[in-house]
Amino acid sequence: MTDLRIGPALVVPVTAEPFTGYVEVTGGEITHLGPAPTDAPAAETVAAPGRIVIPAFVNTHCHTSQQLGRGLGDDVGLLTWLHERIWPYELALDESDSELSALVCAIEQVRNGCTLLADPGGRHVDGMARGIAAVGIRALLGRSAMDSGDGRPPGDRETTDEVLAAQDELVERWHGTGLLRFSYTLRTIFNCSDELITATVERARELGTVVQMHVAEVPEENAHSVATRGTTTVRHLDRLGALGPDLLAVHATWVDDGEIGLLAERGCPVSHNAASNLKILGTPRIADMLDAGVHIALGTDGAPSNNRMSLLDEMWLAAIVQKGVRRDPTVLPAAAVLRMATVDGATALGMGHLVGSLETGKRADLVVLDPFTPNFATAADPVSALVTACKSENVESVLCDGEWVLRERRLARVDEAAVLAEAADRAAAVRRRLQL
Amino acid sequence: MTDLRIGPALVVPVTAEPFTGYVEVTGGEITHLGPAPTDAPAAETVAAPGRIVIPAFVNTHCHTSQQLGRGLGDDVGLLTWLHERIWPYELALDESDSELSALVCAIEQVRNGCTLLADPGGRHVDGMARGIAAVGIRALLGRSAMDSGDGRPPGDRETTDEVLAAQDELVERWHGTGLLRFSYTLRTIFNCSDELITATVERARELGTVVQMHVAEVPEENAHSVATRGTTTVRHLDRLGALGPDLLAVHATWVDDGEIGLLAERGCPVSHNAASNLKILGTPRIADMLDAGVHIALGTDGAPSNNRMSLLDEMWLAAIVQKGVRRDPTVLPAAAVLRMATVDGATALGMGHLVGSLETGKRADLVVLDPFTPNFATAADPVSALVTACKSENVESVLCDGEWVLRERRLARVDEAAVLAEAADRAAAVRRRLQL
Repeated sequence: MTDLRIGPALVVPVTAEPFTGYVEVTGGEITHLGPAPTDAPAAETVAAPGRIVIPAFVNTHCHTSQQLGRGLGDDVGLLTWLHERIWPYELALDESDSELSALVCAIEQVRNGCTLLADPGGRHVDGMARGIAAVGIRALLGRSAMDSGDGRPPGDRETTDEVLAAQDELVERWHGTGLLRFSYTLRTIFNCSDELITATVERARELGTVVQMHVAEVPEENAHSVATRGTTTVRHLDRLGALGPDLLAVHATWVDDGEIGLLAERGCPVSHNAASNLKILGTPRIADMLDAGVHIALGTDGAPSNNRMSLLDEMWLAAIVQKGVRRDPTVLPAAAVLRMATVDGATALGMGHLVGSLETGKRADLVVLDPFTPNFATAADPVSALVTACKSENVESVLCDGEWVLRERRLARVDEAAVLAEAADRAAAVRRRLQL
Repeated sequence: MTDLRIGPALVVPVTAEPFTGYVEVTGGEITHLGPAPTDAPAAETVAAPGRIVIPAFVNTHCHTSQQLGRGLGDDVGLLTWLHERIWPYELALDESDSELSALVCAIEQVRNGCTLLADPGGRHVDGMARGIAAVGIRALLGRSAMDSGDGRPPGDRETTDEVLAAQDELVERWHGTGLLRFSYTLRTIFNCSDELITATVERARELGTVVQMHVAEVPEENAHSVATRGTTTVRHLDRLGALGPDLLAVHATWVDDGEIGLLAERGCPVSHNAASNLKILGTPRIADMLDAGVHIALGTDGAPSNNRMSLLDEMWLAAIVQKGVRRDPTVLPAAAVLRMATVDGATALGMGHLVGSLETGKRADLVVLDPFTPNFATAADPVSALVTACKSENVESVLCDGEWVLRERRLARVDEAAVLAEAADRAAAVRRRLQL
């Protein structure tokens, strides 16, 4: 007996060649992939003529608690964005707001084919966890960690020990609860002492989880690092022993050849957020990093910095922006970008053994795409079209850990219309409180 | 008696401040805009609670006959793209293929809120015209015009007189037929003699239509112009008297300060195609052009060079790419980008008096947007969200010349599923003929 059989469809495992055939799932695990189904009777069958089945996307940088702040950062400079919009916004949220924010964010992730997100940290992790869990997807949670630096509002100051203790407590509560995991975080080198950086990396390694850190976001950050530590962020992190496969360097917008070499040598993954980078930070040298062997994953960042929260848009953008930067249409070919958005993302979050590709033995996180739309129907190559043409309208059904979270374009576990209506009201209430 | 009353909704006229109220349409014309409806009874009313009503988008560069070639140009260099993929593809189409290609393209335009496209020219204009007319939207048609230059396949060679005569004939047939108009075209300076350029501009001015021309696409084009004409493309066109409000300069990817000054001084509009530029050509200096006073409109280019054919994606991309290029998040603010995609596009096509904004007396080309989706519901500013967050899934209904072409997400005049199925088969057949 198999729980679920999907097919015949075009199956794109990502780590193997596409084929026309079947995917079978039992106990939340992929049990069979092949041109023919097994003989076992199936409790549920999904005939998927002409459909495309792919692994669900992995969003390696997704500020779920910023979802109610969409649009707050439009068309303003970085310092206004951070000090006058984002930090006050984050402080204005209570736990219930964070829960609703994460809930809407998780819905948007599902509608864009994503079932695993890494949240680099809000303040109300319990709320975030409940919001994400309600939709039924996976997350690597984090709590915003800052123990020093300028510009933070008065309500947002903690000591190194407080920052660490709060995270230790959240590990107990959420790491391994349902589909949730916990990771340690470091906001930026502006706001994290060396003591915090070292202790954080140590604890994450003990726990076997990753550290999420915004790294080399703006030239001013490198200048600050040189002024306070004597060298740039990436070089300083390496000196502290922090660079490794378990430190997710988010953005890495401003790195030189030597730093690219260090990231490659240490196996330190980079979360590339193409839209948010363009909007606020600059354009990172992703094509150069790939040439140097840096492990690249993709992320959306938060709603105020993107404002689309879709890996489908990020894949398209990442590919064409780097083609434009290099003036070489052959860089970041579709198959490589699809890996970044799936299996390379899962690996960057320390979960490559679990999800990110369609392989027997992995957990069943997958998307059924409907290509019968004007943007997709005439495409020459479906794998290429996944990256260049596919949009949320093509996402028909999404399975996470063997359970439907989206089925024929309907959210399976939440009343989407009611959540969206409440979220719109709540976002307006937050803006009123902030007088924005 | 009014034909149609839409409201109460958030109305964004683009050329005036947004307001909550009503739009009324009679005889295909906008007859009333205001916070309250008129007293006249309405033949049809659309209660649009929470909806957003905007002018329909104007796509100033849309190769409708390339729609069946989506994906043919992925991840290959420019010369392979043009000589081995696009030109052979275009030659492989017969009139029926062109009609179907244009039909699918027009469907995609409607689903993305666009009711006016400028086609820079295929070979089978009659087919293109019929395909577009079937969906019920407007177009500025063109026939691909080349009388010289290297690299063209043997079946694609015409003399200057043949090129002009073929266009004269099409003017008779299509200029002013239904919602269609005709414009003269010039493919590029690589493939157009000075005689053709001069005669084309003269005829367009006589007819009162515009000329569509690919201008300064790649550095090699400027080098070719210097070698064969003694100066760069833009300067040479100016010397020929061709630069003016009636020459639509498409791309203008590689222009220097002096050329930007010329474009501004002559009132020569630029069709900016952000995605296609990044993918193949480079990144034009749109923010600099705006500072200099150049008139900027937006376009998608063709399916093999984009591959998304949506002004919604182009608005987002145009804004964030220029913010990234300048490293200044304040350039290309949302309101300016929305103008580029609507009224500035209409003006660039010589149709600003007819469409492009919601004003009484203009033809009724408008879009009803449903913002109750996870990407839009929590947005702080709906106008900003139109540019940054809005996607095809938000396009609920589209009116063109007072007639519904999309109503509650269904195409009004064509059987979309049947068209898409036929188009998918036909695209595959074309690829087989080309052995691609």
